[in-house]
Amino acid sequence: MNKQAQDKFNIIIELARRRGFFWQSYEIYGGVSGFVTYGFLGAKLKQNIEKKLREIFVNKLGIMEIEAPIIAPSRIFEASGHVDHFKEPMVECLKCKKRFRADHLLEETAKLSASDVEKLSLEELKEALEKHNVRCPECGGNFSNPKHFLTMFKTTIGPYSRAVGYGRPEAAQGIFVEFRRLYEMAREKLPFGVMQIGHALRNEISPRQGLIRLREFTIADIEFFFDPKDTNCFLLQEVGDETLRLVLAESKLRGSEEIVEVTVKEALKNGYIKVSWQAAFMAIAKSLLIELGIPANNQRFVEKLPWERAHYSLQSFDQEVYVDRWGWIEVSGHAYRTDYDLKQHMDFSGTDMRVFKDYEKPVAREKKIVKPVMTKLGPVFKSTAQKIAKMISEANPEEVEASFKARGYYMLGNYKILPEHVEITTCTLEERGRRFIPHVVEPSFGSDRLVYVTLEYAYRVKSDRVVLSFPRDIAPIQVGVYPLVSRDGLPEKALQVYNTLVNEDIAAEYDEAGSIGRRYARADEAGIPLGVTIDYETIKDDTVTIRDRDTWRQVRTSIDALPELLHKYFRKKIEFDDLGTIVKK
Amino acid sequence: MNKQAQDKFNIIIELARRRGFFWQSYEIYGGVSGFVTYGFLGAKLKQNIEKKLREIFVNKLGIMEIEAPIIAPSRIFEASGHVDHFKEPMVECLKCKKRFRADHLLEETAKLSASDVEKLSLEELKEALEKHNVRCPECGGNFSNPKHFLTMFKTTIGPYSRAVGYGRPEAAQGIFVEFRRLYEMAREKLPFGVMQIGHALRNEISPRQGLIRLREFTIADIEFFFDPKDTNCFLLQEVGDETLRLVLAESKLRGSEEIVEVTVKEALKNGYIKVSWQAAFMAIAKSLLIELGIPANNQRFVEKLPWERAHYSLQSFDQEVYVDRWGWIEVSGHAYRTDYDLKQHMDFSGTDMRVFKDYEKPVAREKKIVKPVMTKLGPVFKSTAQKIAKMISEANPEEVEASFKARGYYMLGNYKILPEHVEITTCTLEERGRRFIPHVVEPSFGSDRLVYVTLEYAYRVKSDRVVLSFPRDIAPIQVGVYPLVSRDGLPEKALQVYNTLVNEDIAAEYDEAGSIGRRYARADEAGIPLGVTIDYETIKDDTVTIRDRDTWRQVRTSIDALPELLHKYFRKKIEFDDLGTIVKK
Repeated sequence: MNKQAQDKFNIIIELARRRGFFWQSYEIYGGVSGFVTYGFLGAKLKQNIEKKLREIFVNKLGIMEIEAPIIAPSRIFEASGHVDHFKEPMVECLKCKKRFRADHLLEETAKLSASDVEKLSLEELKEALEKHNVRCPECGGNFSNPKHFLTMFKTTIGPYSRAVGYGRPEAAQGIFVEFRRLYEMAREKLPFGVMQIGHALRNEISPRQGLIRLREFTIADIEFFFDPKDTNCFLLQEVGDETLRLVLAESKLRGSEEIVEVTVKEALKNGYIKVSWQAAFMAIAKSLLIELGIPANNQRFVEKLPWERAHYSLQSFDQEVYVDRWGWIEVSGHAYRTDYDLKQHMDFSGTDMRVFKDYEKPVAREKKIVKPVMTKLGPVFKSTAQKIAKMISEANPEEVEASFKARGYYMLGNYKILPEHVEITTCTLEERGRRFIPHVVEPSFGSDRLVYVTLEYAYRVKSDRVVLSFPRDIAPIQVGVYPLVSRDGLPEKALQVYNTLVNEDIAAEYDEAGSIGRRYARADEAGIPLGVTIDYETIKDDTVTIRDRDTWRQVRTSIDALPELLHKYFRKKIEFDDLGTIVKK
Repeated sequence: MNKQAQDKFNIIIELARRRGFFWQSYEIYGGVSGFVTYGFLGAKLKQNIEKKLREIFVNKLGIMEIEAPIIAPSRIFEASGHVDHFKEPMVECLKCKKRFRADHLLEETAKLSASDVEKLSLEELKEALEKHNVRCPECGGNFSNPKHFLTMFKTTIGPYSRAVGYGRPEAAQGIFVEFRRLYEMAREKLPFGVMQIGHALRNEISPRQGLIRLREFTIADIEFFFDPKDTNCFLLQEVGDETLRLVLAESKLRGSEEIVEVTVKEALKNGYIKVSWQAAFMAIAKSLLIELGIPANNQRFVEKLPWERAHYSLQSFDQEVYVDRWGWIEVSGHAYRTDYDLKQHMDFSGTDMRVFKDYEKPVAREKKIVKPVMTKLGPVFKSTAQKIAKMISEANPEEVEASFKARGYYMLGNYKILPEHVEITTCTLEERGRRFIPHVVEPSFGSDRLVYVTLEYAYRVKSDRVVLSFPRDIAPIQVGVYPLVSRDGLPEKALQVYNTLVNEDIAAEYDEAGSIGRRYARADEAGIPLGVTIDYETIKDDTVTIRDRDTWRQVRTSIDALPELLHKYFRKKIEFDDLGTIVKK
């Protein structure tokens, strides 16, 4: 506990609560585990991180963003497999009736690894709990037999109780079920990607860990549809030489967490990653995290073992970030979902989810056909000859031939067909293309976890002061505007500057309360990259100082030039020293 | 039906579906009423409208945006009154078992007004249905007695079935329950506002009408907290002379829809609107709608009659927009929620929701006090004298005095106190301020309805072509980039231009499919304000044409100047003609 009291998790949680980044929801009613409310700074930070996802995936890569509902009819999650698979093992204390995740108890109390626990059946979990003598952490009581608890929020849609609906545990299904329309919007061309950022719900049994495990959270799912036979991945030109730090399943099976550092191209060549699109997205995810302030060396991608993977995945990597309290935590998942989801929805809905893809040029293909010989059929079958002729044309040529070979005849229902009745020949058909269900790789980010790691990595202490060194393009507030003192016309002048910036869509804050030193300290703690101070010189010559949050250095510049300079600075076109003339202290 | 087939609602719905703005969700499973999915263009349009709300309320007015969960424990909605009040009258067909909104049936079948129906009790609804002989619209069957249906989505939180939770029907409660923290974030000063934009859920009995009545929708709730005794509203400086078109409750009671056109100041002076903040927000809401493309004359504010208002409201206006199919529809609600919600949460949670506000200078107040006279009490009450003296000090001086007057003594529990035992005097107390629960006005916008009216008002037909004339700052795609023909190096050059724009965070689309005329037509229908065309001249001199969606006029400008010009154009700093040299046709 003492160690924990000092760790960054506690520091961040306390800071987040005090400065209004986020806190547990419904505190006045005692709080509800697994729900957080983002205050002003937190909501902005989260939005800016999501904006970054949009810049990278939507604006630059041309992935289409959609917005689908959170509530879906049960049929969707029956098809997707979630009703069968989205369950966790639960035990109930026989004494105090509290309920717990059986696997988490084993991890925490008996110190078993998550990976080892994940493969246990209910029966095996029971045995393990008994073997390690795990008791109720609340009252020391014994447990019931483990059973599965469906971790989706259940409700009914409309006034009929049989119309069961669920809160979506992922945003992916809202994309898969609309595949036909989305494919049309992509002008019926592969590959294409669709993103959805929105709230998702997982009815966790007993969540803790702040932003790390929530019952309601924001997910950013990207479903990227491609032709599995087309190995060309245009993203590799850009990211093929990026390095990835991988922990492979084969290492994990040896009990090792050895990190293999390879380029994207090598990872593909060595077969570490099955699909090139997936490898490319992993490299992009790595760069994204770097832009949020997490160095490459504090990131890794861990391959999931077969029993750790979701039911729809053929290969999965978790992007993990090292954090002080919890060690490595997942911030994004990269799953090769194959054609699993589209196939399931095709089966359950009867809608054809296949696409047709033209070959570059039509392919000539030899095909065996059975042709009826009417001059022989007519005399034998008389008035039914026409009907039989038609049936012969539809028969399977291979079967007919095999039957002739084995028995000397072929039975077409009750009609005995002899070799002389037909002619078996080959003809050349032209195939224009092929029909198939696209495959999918899915990069999936957890917004809340991105917020958490961004906060932890932005946290610095400088001369006993807390500074949140957010990268400038995601800082919740961009500029603080301060009159040096709150008299002699300085506040009025400062408000003018503030209004100018606000009208230029710069996220600015005006603050005149307390000494300028205290205001700078408050701004550093809120992670405001720049402070613009209006002083007595401003009144004379319309210049202001700009102060850098991280170095506390100052430059002086004219008010007129401010908006354009700031726009360029926040679009990363110029650096701090380009904002004006250095002020010597 | 024939008339409907031609109306704008159908045209917009068809266009929205075809171009991927939005469509009914889960179509492959037959669709579910009340749920829509926004495709690429629709999601962007909706985001841009929400961005506009943020620009106006967060950036310019300094309102704090927060993000709270959608699921809340039942206690929240018991306190807020929703569990008791958020109900609709429902009838079931005794024959086919279909369920309907009793009030909607009366409006549609018996042509009663919504306002008249809204005040009927269940018993009266029953009588009205019988009187007007309303039968099941599906099978003609008779109805059950009307009963109330709770239109919140119900679920359980965690593994205990008694932990009931609801999907929020409004975003407001997520703000109210966090009032103490938010007040702290506002540095304990009134007034301040908090906004939340997010999904909300209303389990409508039988929703129709596309985006107009949804079970899952996006709401933008602003709760503005103020001191009801402080009549100073700084927003009036800016919007006091704006005109509002009001339909007052008193007109409606006379059966009239007469529009009173007054300035904000007049509306306040005449007592049409009770709270100045509310009037100011109504003016801002009007300007917002104008910026979305809806002329002032197609907007009005309709005051709700007492029985039409939500349970928490003392005065409510609906901002309505005229649409082709439905006539006037609500796009935002403006409710004076008083201290209702904070008071309820104070009662239910025991948390003090009052704020303390200093007077400008302390106020001296005369106060009557009762002082025990020990020399008289001691001899009479002996050892209990001390205790009685204390009780006397805590007694209500007015009550004591009145009792002396009426009866000549005062009973303090079982002790009889005579006038000689006490001294009643006055003292002067200094009051520093007062403690009170802030009042609230709430502007509340429906994002989906804003999307719908924006689309309907953007719709034009020009030379037989559909043009969506979105205001340039909310258009989903800002710029189309086109090679004149798809050969001779033009596509390569066009892709360079496209990449430059994309890297400048301009929402651009590249299109080389089909004739340039067809591409322009496609872009007009998607509402893309500008088209940049790369032609043979571009190869020679690095200039391009820019085409205006609405006038189809063209200017020519250099590629180098393009990013800055476009930034200025979309920030509304310059007009189309400033983008280059007019091209004469």
